[in-house]
Amino acid sequence: MTEQPSPEIHPAWLPSTAFRAIASRRVVVDGDGPLVDTVRDEVIRAGGILTAPGEPADLVLVSGGSSGSPHPSGPFGSFGSSGDGFSVSRRDGTTVVRADGPSGLLNGWFALARDVPPGRHDPALPLRVLDHWDNVDLHPVMGRVERGYAGGSLFWHDGALREDLSRVRDYARLLAASGINAVTINNVNVHATETRLLTDRRDEVAAIAAEFRRYGVRVHLSINFAAPVFLGDLPTADPLDDRVRAWWSRATARMFDTIPDFGGYLVKADSEGQPGPHTYHRTHADGANMLAEALAPFGAVVRWRAFVYDHRQDWRDRGTDRARAAHDHFVPLDGTFHDNVIVQVKYGPMDFQTREPISPVLLAMPRTNLAVELQATQEYTGQQKHICYLPPMWSAVLRSVRVRALAAVSNAGDDPFWTGHPLAQANLYAVGRLAWDPTLDPIAVLDEWITWTFPEARDVLHELMDDSWQTYERYTAPLGVGFMVRPGHHYGPDVDGYEYTPWGTYHFADRDGIGVDRTRATGTGFTAQYPQPLSDLYESRDTCPDELLLFFHHVPYTHVLHSGVTVIQHIYDTHFTGAARVAEMRHRFQKSADLFTPAVYARISALLDEQLRSAEEWRDQINTYFFRKSGIPDARHRRIH
Amino acid sequence: MTEQPSPEIHPAWLPSTAFRAIASRRVVVDGDGPLVDTVRDEVIRAGGILTAPGEPADLVLVSGGSSGSPHPSGPFGSFGSSGDGFSVSRRDGTTVVRADGPSGLLNGWFALARDVPPGRHDPALPLRVLDHWDNVDLHPVMGRVERGYAGGSLFWHDGALREDLSRVRDYARLLAASGINAVTINNVNVHATETRLLTDRRDEVAAIAAEFRRYGVRVHLSINFAAPVFLGDLPTADPLDDRVRAWWSRATARMFDTIPDFGGYLVKADSEGQPGPHTYHRTHADGANMLAEALAPFGAVVRWRAFVYDHRQDWRDRGTDRARAAHDHFVPLDGTFHDNVIVQVKYGPMDFQTREPISPVLLAMPRTNLAVELQATQEYTGQQKHICYLPPMWSAVLRSVRVRALAAVSNAGDDPFWTGHPLAQANLYAVGRLAWDPTLDPIAVLDEWITWTFPEARDVLHELMDDSWQTYERYTAPLGVGFMVRPGHHYGPDVDGYEYTPWGTYHFADRDGIGVDRTRATGTGFTAQYPQPLSDLYESRDTCPDELLLFFHHVPYTHVLHSGVTVIQHIYDTHFTGAARVAEMRHRFQKSADLFTPAVYARISALLDEQLRSAEEWRDQINTYFFRKSGIPDARHRRIH
Repeated sequence: MTEQPSPEIHPAWLPSTAFRAIASRRVVVDGDGPLVDTVRDEVIRAGGILTAPGEPADLVLVSGGSSGSPHPSGPFGSFGSSGDGFSVSRRDGTTVVRADGPSGLLNGWFALARDVPPGRHDPALPLRVLDHWDNVDLHPVMGRVERGYAGGSLFWHDGALREDLSRVRDYARLLAASGINAVTINNVNVHATETRLLTDRRDEVAAIAAEFRRYGVRVHLSINFAAPVFLGDLPTADPLDDRVRAWWSRATARMFDTIPDFGGYLVKADSEGQPGPHTYHRTHADGANMLAEALAPFGAVVRWRAFVYDHRQDWRDRGTDRARAAHDHFVPLDGTFHDNVIVQVKYGPMDFQTREPISPVLLAMPRTNLAVELQATQEYTGQQKHICYLPPMWSAVLRSVRVRALAAVSNAGDDPFWTGHPLAQANLYAVGRLAWDPTLDPIAVLDEWITWTFPEARDVLHELMDDSWQTYERYTAPLGVGFMVRPGHHYGPDVDGYEYTPWGTYHFADRDGIGVDRTRATGTGFTAQYPQPLSDLYESRDTCPDELLLFFHHVPYTHVLHSGVTVIQHIYDTHFTGAARVAEMRHRFQKSADLFTPAVYARISALLDEQLRSAEEWRDQINTYFFRKSGIPDARHRRIH
Repeated sequence: MTEQPSPEIHPAWLPSTAFRAIASRRVVVDGDGPLVDTVRDEVIRAGGILTAPGEPADLVLVSGGSSGSPHPSGPFGSFGSSGDGFSVSRRDGTTVVRADGPSGLLNGWFALARDVPPGRHDPALPLRVLDHWDNVDLHPVMGRVERGYAGGSLFWHDGALREDLSRVRDYARLLAASGINAVTINNVNVHATETRLLTDRRDEVAAIAAEFRRYGVRVHLSINFAAPVFLGDLPTADPLDDRVRAWWSRATARMFDTIPDFGGYLVKADSEGQPGPHTYHRTHADGANMLAEALAPFGAVVRWRAFVYDHRQDWRDRGTDRARAAHDHFVPLDGTFHDNVIVQVKYGPMDFQTREPISPVLLAMPRTNLAVELQATQEYTGQQKHICYLPPMWSAVLRSVRVRALAAVSNAGDDPFWTGHPLAQANLYAVGRLAWDPTLDPIAVLDEWITWTFPEARDVLHELMDDSWQTYERYTAPLGVGFMVRPGHHYGPDVDGYEYTPWGTYHFADRDGIGVDRTRATGTGFTAQYPQPLSDLYESRDTCPDELLLFFHHVPYTHVLHSGVTVIQHIYDTHFTGAARVAEMRHRFQKSADLFTPAVYARISALLDEQLRSAEEWRDQINTYFFRKSGIPDARHRRIH
């Protein structure tokens, strides 16, 4: 394969008009260092007139603090928080942005484009990171980007670093404008080639870091826990072995020699076949702390994923519950992780399903730095063929937890629209905004994104997107039971696809009922992992929210929901209305051709055709499956095949 | 990849002891030509003493007829029949084998090893062919051999012809000894590289043909119907276009320049995405006859597969029945195919399932040369991890039809035991023997193979293999309903795996019953494709054999079989007894280590472990699935999960 010339790249939320208010205005940029220079370049790009400090100006941007030391002091500095905040004031026709440091100045600059109100602005979370599951080598099963639906990687092509990194710079600018301050540039499943990014291929990491640095985004690396063995240097990767500890110290020091502002490591250990400390009868804390010690001198962090479970489960074993696994593994370790370890926890106890309860791990480790992990890439939520604006789901989780970081699996690739589906950009944008302020209204964030990206199409996009997550939920797996997707690629329906597999994802539907009994009283005891009042809330069918009923309870099809309908009728109703809603969305969009460029219209139009086909397939398979099983007809006599 | 040095290759049914009766005997070989020379070499290899005609001898082998003209006269000659037969007589201590020609002499020679009785011996079918689904290039999904479970290809390695073809020669010798007289050397799904075997890569075909020729086995090629377009020579592959016809004539003539005894073409057209005449609104007869005309001057044949159906079916469309497709497509064309066309028909109407009714096409085309197609490779029958001796199934079909040829998909590869599972050799051996004489008792054929291959282990192998097909059937899909395998790779259970896919393979199980209504009265009308009395036999639940009930009828779980038990109880009973039988087989085998070499014992032992694990998985998934659906408990209270 050779690199193809790029088609026209969509500007996403930074069109040329984003800073039109700056054109011909006098702007003072006061401060030193590369990020301050980036702000100066931005002013010039926007058509502003750079003016000396003290001269009359329409806009004054003042960077306080350091000029960008590569080693912010202490582990929390390393999270990226120092200097990210800024304040805005207006006086006598002059807008003044006063930042705590150069990164705050850049944040303030981009905030101007969305008419930030006067006052103090600080990020709620110091680390706001996008994790790319990009493979350097084409993977025979997972392709160029694992669970990627937006073409190839922005960084890698055909086994090597891309020659032209100009899109990486554009991407960094987009991310900075949304609030992101870190990026992990390779898949958490670290294969042979990718293992070497840590060592003999770290110049490639440095080349990418140089592009991101310009916009204050620090680069992180997914590492192979067994790298000392894998690279042939040592016979063991035991984290308590002195040779291993020395190996990681040296490798990390060399990384910082090459990239002084390197951000840290991301580790998937003892999970789905990846190596980890369990091989050596050590704990996750032993593994994470060893890496943390190697990183500590440089003020950097290790993120250690809590996504650990038995993926060789036997469906006949009713005593094992995958939902329990992360809590069982990690909560006993609370308080034993070093300060520069972040335990990174998926928002739900399973795996990025359309609807899950919040992970109890996020509520149970007060003495540990936690990150919540979201998935912007739509693995289980329509794979960027379906419109599914996810922040309403994310927002509920983010408002319920106290974490130090937000990590999201990126949905961006080398697609001209960045995210395959042009409207999936909104999920990417919202990651940064919600990481900056988790209390933001997700629909207001969507409105911001529309304002910057498709300002002509505000009404139609709200109609298509505001409730698109709920719509997707309606025509897919019901009432929180999850999965029911085709194994492997995870697109489209297959109700029993995972029912008898080793992955631990069940629905237990029989002729009488459906759902997983996770109660303390009669089930797997998962509800006991929650603090009160959640534990009792989920334990009782009477108080468990309808949308999570089948996650926590096995109930008859005739069980009456709080909504007043039976489970089976709810299944029929939501699947008919869900698919009908997609038909409406498609109809609505088709009347809006004049609001979009031909390329955008054509792409969205084709994807809505597929979304409708798929939604109807979901509707029909789910309805037929449950009609065959229950024998209960639709009370409204609609067609079930 | 580089070619590895071979481990020790198993001699299969030609161990060094096969011809021990010849050692030190005086043997006259009377005749001329390469195949007669092969017999002379065989005599020397066996330790016989070549003696001049007229001298006293213990064994006299006389070849009559031609010395092996590369162009036997007429199309039936081209099938390979001329000269294949021989007679055996004994007089005054001398055995005389008198053959119709050199190939008959070789057949007679190999027959001696199995104590052929005196009398006349002629093959029932003139063409006895193994079709290899071998890919030249590694296919990203299907690997080196499509549906291959015995390692890589004997012919191709890493995109090229193997450097060392000595195993091809050994393979040819084994095939000749079993009665096979032709081999197709590439996959019926003809990809880019393989298309060129017909043109610029035909020297590689010639190199393989040279090895097979030594043992009287002719080489056939799977061709790409769109080759004239694919290779860039023409804008069309329309079989009625004069340029296309001329292209095929020239390509075919060049093939015969290179390989004078080339056997012919095999074509999968308009099937599962392969190109064909339908693109040009022409019939299968138009396509096949065009190729037949190109081949006719050389006395060669085209085999045209009848495996044509809609693989983009919608499960919601109850009016389409994949079982009907081959008959619907081909029977109207009866009488329109040229004499050197053979329409090759799978034994059943679906796709090599463990139990299917005979294909009605095989009973409905009296004016067409037909081949029956079997599958020695165990795609749906345990993938050479399970012991499944198939000839009892094949035999029932072969005794019911009048065909000109038998074709079987080979189960051989570069595995040291040829077929992965050492006991799967028996299926390969039986293909040739049943093609020679379809009336042979399949257990007698097995006994022959054991005598040649594992003579010490006669008792245990009969215990393991005689009823192994019925055992496999017991623990897999019940009562002829078919499939219920994991989509894609087709190994292991997934009851609903194909239920909602485009492949047209359904069971329609609901809470009340299961099966496909293919009756004339209320179903798809498939039973009308059979002649009487079969049509009425299958039409009625009262007369339909139990083992095919769910292929033809949708019945309640409480329907009572001729065996006296209900359908649901039959499902439970057969699945418990099937898995228990495998446990018995494994136990029996484990007591027999002294009857096998360590390598054979180790391989079979490991595979029996896997067979038992898989059989228990089948038992439990099938039983749980139907218990969940029917709610009817096992009358014998065994454990259902």
